[in-house]
Amino acid sequence: MDRIPILKLGSALLVTIQVDMHDRLATALQEDLTEKIVSARAKGVLIDISALEIVDSFIGRMLDHIAAISRMLDAETVVVGMRPAVAITLVELGLSLSGVKTALNVERGMDLIRRRLIETEAADGAGDE
Amino acid sequence: MDRIPILKLGSALLVTIQVDMHDRLATALQEDLTEKIVSARAKGVLIDISALEIVDSFIGRMLDHIAAISRMLDAETVVVGMRPAVAITLVELGLSLSGVKTALNVERGMDLIRRRLIETEAADGAGDE
Repeated sequence: MDRIPILKLGSALLVTIQVDMHDRLATALQEDLTEKIVSARAKGVLIDISALEIVDSFIGRMLDHIAAISRMLDAETVVVGMRPAVAITLVELGLSLSGVKTALNVERGMDLIRRRLIETEAADGAGDE
Repeated sequence: MDRIPILKLGSALLVTIQVDMHDRLATALQEDLTEKIVSARAKGVLIDISALEIVDSFIGRMLDHIAAISRMLDAETVVVGMRPAVAITLVELGLSLSGVKTALNVERGMDLIRRRLIETEAADGAGDE
């Protein structure tokens, strides 16, 4: 496995982290995600980490990076399915993921992104498309 | 990793296969999926295999099994993101996945399940909920 699949769901992209992340995989994910945000005109990125029982600072930083890159491309990052133990570890590591929104599950994450889309379109008048 | 995450998306469940399947993982997936179909009252199961570059008869049979179990629980299985080479291999292995619907990507798969849901509800009159 050298690539994590990125699935398009409406105006959002969904990534499920299931495997141990290493440098090359994380870099590939960031590159793929960046390209796909632009090509799919995505407004949100959902990252499901429900399979992760532990996180380290490497994954924490990767999530932060992805959120920062997505924001520059006008897409919001929502981390979904975080286990309680993972939340504790992240805070203990000093990674509060300030640029990242979180949601209990994919459906709530999609709601967040949909709501933001509606707000943006309302602010733009009739939408910019 | 001892479990493949199952994500709920509306009336469907989404599973992304990213790792090499072995006996125990496949059994765990079937059990989890069966429980989740019932608890989430799911009408469809989407299995994304876009990350798989090769399939063997083990994965082919697993997909067939999942489809058969889901059908008994009144949920339709749609395999999405199959690569052309994988389709060739499956046919060569004599596994035509006759009980499984396929779709190009998750969005089209969701459309398939949504359409089936509408048809079922129309047949039931005003719906059975």
